[in-house]
Parts: sequence; structure tokens; C-alpha cells
Amino acid sequence: MDPNRFAYTFSVRLHDTDAAGRLFFGHLFRHAHDAYEAFMAQAGLPLERLIREGELLLPLVHAEADYHRPLCQGDRVQISLAIEEIRTRSFAVGYRFETQDGTLAATAKTVHLQINRDGSPASCLSDGILDAIHPYTQNRPQ
Amino acid sequence: MDPNRFAYTFSVRLHDTDAAGRLFFGHLFRHAHDAYEAFMAQAGLPLERLIREGELLLPLVHAEADYHRPLCQGDRVQISLAIEEIRTRSFAVGYRFETQDGTLAATAKTVHLQINRDGSPASCLSDGILDAIHPYTQNRPQ
Amino acid sequence: MDPNRFAYTFSVRLHDTDAAGRLFFGHLFRHAHDAYEAFMAQAGLPLERLIREGELLLPLVHAEADYHRPLCQGDRVQISLAIEEIRTRSFAVGYRFETQDGTLAATAKTVHLQINRDGSPASCLSDGILDAIHPYTQNRPQ
Amino acid sequence: MDPNRFAYTFSVRLHDTDAAGRLFFGHLFRHAHDAYEAFMAQAGLPLERLIREGELLLPLVHAEADYHRPLCQGDRVQISLAIEEIRTRSFAVGYRFETQDGTLAATAKTVHLQINRDGSPASCLSDGILDAIHPYTQNRPQ
Repeated sequence: MDPNRFAYTFSVRLHDTDAAGRLFFGHLFRHAHDAYEAFMAQAGLPLERLIREGELLLPLVHAEADYHRPLCQGDRVQISLAIEEIRTRSFAVGYRFETQDGTLAATAKTVHLQINRDGSPASCLSDGILDAIHPYTQNRPQ
Repeated sequence: MDPNRFAYTFSVRLHDTDAAGRLFFGHLFRHAHDAYEAFMAQAGLPLERLIREGELLLPLVHAEADYHRPLCQGDRVQISLAIEEIRTRSFAVGYRFETQDGTLAATAKTVHLQINRDGSPASCLSDGILDAIHPYTQNRPQ
Repeated sequence: MDPNRFAYTFSVRLHDTDAAGRLFFGHLFRHAHDAYEAFMAQAGLPLERLIREGELLLPLVHAEADYHRPLCQGDRVQISLAIEEIRTRSFAVGYRFETQDGTLAATAKTVHLQINRDGSPASCLSDGILDAIHPYTQNRPQ
Repeated sequence: MDPNRFAYTFSVRLHDTDAAGRLFFGHLFRHAHDAYEAFMAQAGLPLERLIREGELLLPLVHAEADYHRPLCQGDRVQISLAIEEIRTRSFAVGYRFETQDGTLAATAKTVHLQINRDGSPASCLSDGILDAIHPYTQNRPQ
């Protein structure tokens, strides 16, 4: 795996599946966000602290996913996460979901916007955020 | 239905089911709590106001359910809710889950404890709570 | 509302929210799919029958959402659903989430691909699907 | 930890919490079942195989939990699982939820009934089940 991606592993559990026998599509986003939380904690910005302190707010403004292969109960899945884009006041996180045999089962993306305490968009991403996410940015200049 | 029960209806959705083709047991509690929220709103104590104001805190300290018949996607279910027990500083809510043909599919119970802002148990249930739940108490003296 | 949109209403419940006090983004997709299930049932193609019979399979191959305003516990939300695009073997469903005062809180889209029993893409959408979704297609020729 | 208990660890994630800032009670059961799935896989009876083969069906007929301390986002929780009771055609699984400092945050119990393919209760638990769960039975005769 690309060294500037972050890895997170989970098992597809019974409650992830539905009567059609596969992962219910909406639950993919739950797992993507679990990986994002683990990533932010490792990057030094655990979400629980951000929420508790209320200084640095990063609500999600966009989410999307593409489903390539069904995921079934018992599947062991690796999410690899990278920062796909950094804009003035937002950044995009990309996720690849691969099963143990290396098959790409799904991809996802979430976009996070920095806002002020009053809910208005921040003028720009804070240095704390930029420092945290920069090492995981894809195709960054060396 | 007993006139001092509160009725709440929902449909079993695809995400409620799992690969075994039936409602995942844990999701029954989500639906029970939906009925409780609707009940509390009608009783004049909407949970969102209690949480926002922070004066009257009623964390759940016990939950249980018995599963009699599988519930499947598309099933239309009526929950009937009643206050089963009032103690000094807590009360128990009972739920019956019936499908359209009147079959009892499950029962559940949740116990709610009134606590103070600092997390310690309240000395007794507040009058506001007692007034709200009294009309829905089973077998109450007439 | 545009007459060829399908309406579905829900309340934001406690379990929909997270510690940041707003709807957890992933749960928006659960509600979108609830609306889709209600829509398909009304259109004569209830998902539980499709899954049980296994003849007509419509897995979701793409999902996306944009979040404009936070949704909070107790918010009453109307989803209005329309068919946004019909392709050879797939169709896209669009969702608008509006609160009671008419504010657009979010939009979402899901894409459904018709596949054969062996998992390969169908050569084209079946007549049953086309008949069901055609009345809800946006900007369709009159 | 008692050597005949099974350990399973998870982190409380944002989607586990609600606007009151703590784990939504119903989600405790999801985590309990995750531990049960991991346990059954290690015991040689992975649920996905049981569901796929359809020979050995163990629907959950009862669930309960007691909540002692709030669990919050970021909490690292260890579930320790043991078989609490074996009856003729059912068995009970007990779960203890402890945070990193050893505080008991919650306990839970689930009861699983062996049924036949037609849904009727089995005459007795199969040898395969008994062999799998016996090593994890509390207070078993040595």
C-alpha cells in the first residue's frame, strides 16, 4: 500500500448485512467514518476532543460511494484512506475498501468543511488541520 | 387496545433486516425508543428539549426484549406502549410489537432513571415526569 | 411539490444524531432508502418481493449526498423523491430533504443497476421497472 | 480475566453516540453481537456458515442490558463474554463491558434457541453447539 495512506480494518458483521445477503449500502459510510475517526486520532486531532472543545468544527458537507462488489458477513475488509484534495476551507478524504484477496469492493469520498462557532464557513483551513492531513495527501509535491 | 396505551406504527425496512432475512434483534430497541420519543413528545416532554435544557435527565439504565416471531421486511408493526411501573426515582416503559394480523411478535421494556446534573440519582421523580406518565400507567387506581 | 415527485416524511430521532448534536451523515442514506422502499411499494414493485423472488435484482452501485443544513432531533423532514435519469440498464433516484419551514437541508442520489441472477449486468431495464418508474421521471416528455 | 471468558475490544465511535453525548443504549446490543460473532467464529461455528447452510439455526429469543456508566466517543471498551447458562434447547451468553481503567460500564445477556428448519424448537442443543460453547461456560465442573 502507498505509504502515505492510512489503513483501517474491519469485519462485515451480521447487522451490516440485509435480507439481500450483502452489506446494506448506507453502512459503508459508517465504516468509512470509523476509519476517518481512527485516522484523525492518529493525526493528533481526535474528533471527541474537537467536538468537546468546539473550537475546530469540520462538518461533513458531501459524501459519495461506488459499489463494485457485494460485501458479505464475515468478509474481512481493509480501508485505505488518503487525503484526495485540499481546498481553501475544506478537504476531501478518499477511501478504498478491499477484501482479503485484494479485490476492490467499493470506494468512497467525504468532504469536510471548516466552520466557525457561529456556523459560517472559516476563511481558511487552520494550520492544525493542514499539519495533520498533509502527510496523507496523495500526489503531494515531494 | 387498552385506552391508556400509546400507539406507534412503523414498517420493517431493508436495513432493519440481516442476512438471516429477519429483523436484527438490536434494531428492535431503536424502534422501541422511537415510540418512546413520540410518546414523550405527546406527553409534553419532548426529549430534544430535555437534552437541550439539561434540567431533567432520564438516562436509560435497563433494557430487555423477548422475541416471539420473526419480523421481516415490509411488515407493518404497531407498538403499543404503557408505563409498567413507577418507582421513587425511575419508571419502566413496556412495549408490545404486533403485526397487522394481531400477532404478538415481541415485547420490550426500558427503565429510565432521573438523575441530577452531576450524574447522581435524583431523590425522586419530578412532578413534571409524574404528570406526563401517569395517564399511561397500567392498572392505575381509578 | 412537483406532482411527479413522491413524498415521504420522517422525524429525526435521538439515535439519528451523534455527540455533535446533529444527524450523523451516514444515517441520511438510511432515510433515503426508506423513502425508496416506500416508493417502490407504491409503484407496485415492493423490494421484499423482488428479494424473495430473486428475478429482478437492482443493487445500488452509487450513492451520494450533499449536506446544506444540520438536521437535529425532533426535526420533521419531508423527502421528495424523483427519478432523475434512466439509462440502458440503470436508473438514478434523486432525494430532496426539506424541514417543515421549507428549508432544503440535504440532497441525495442513488443509482440502481439491474443485474441477472448470476450477477452480470442485465442487457436493459425490464419493462416492469420502466413502467414503475416512468411516472416519477423528472422533465419527462409530456 | 477469567481464562474461560472470550475477550473482544472496540472503540466507541461518533455514530454510536447521540445528542446526549453518550452511547445510544440500543447500540450496545450491536457491539454485544459483534463479540458473539467473533466468539462463534473462534469456536468453529461462524454465523455466516450457519446462515448459509441453514442446518443449525440459533435465533435470539431474549436480550437484556444494564447500563452502569455512560460510554462516550473515543472510549476503548473490552467486552468479556462467557456462556452463563446451558438449557435443553437454548443457551445464554453474558457480556461485561469494561473501559480501559477497569470500570464496569454495562452488562448484557442474550439467549439463543436452537430451532429446526421449519421454525419449531429443536428437541435439544446439537453436539456441535455444546462442544463449541462448553469451554466458555462459567463455573463449569472441572
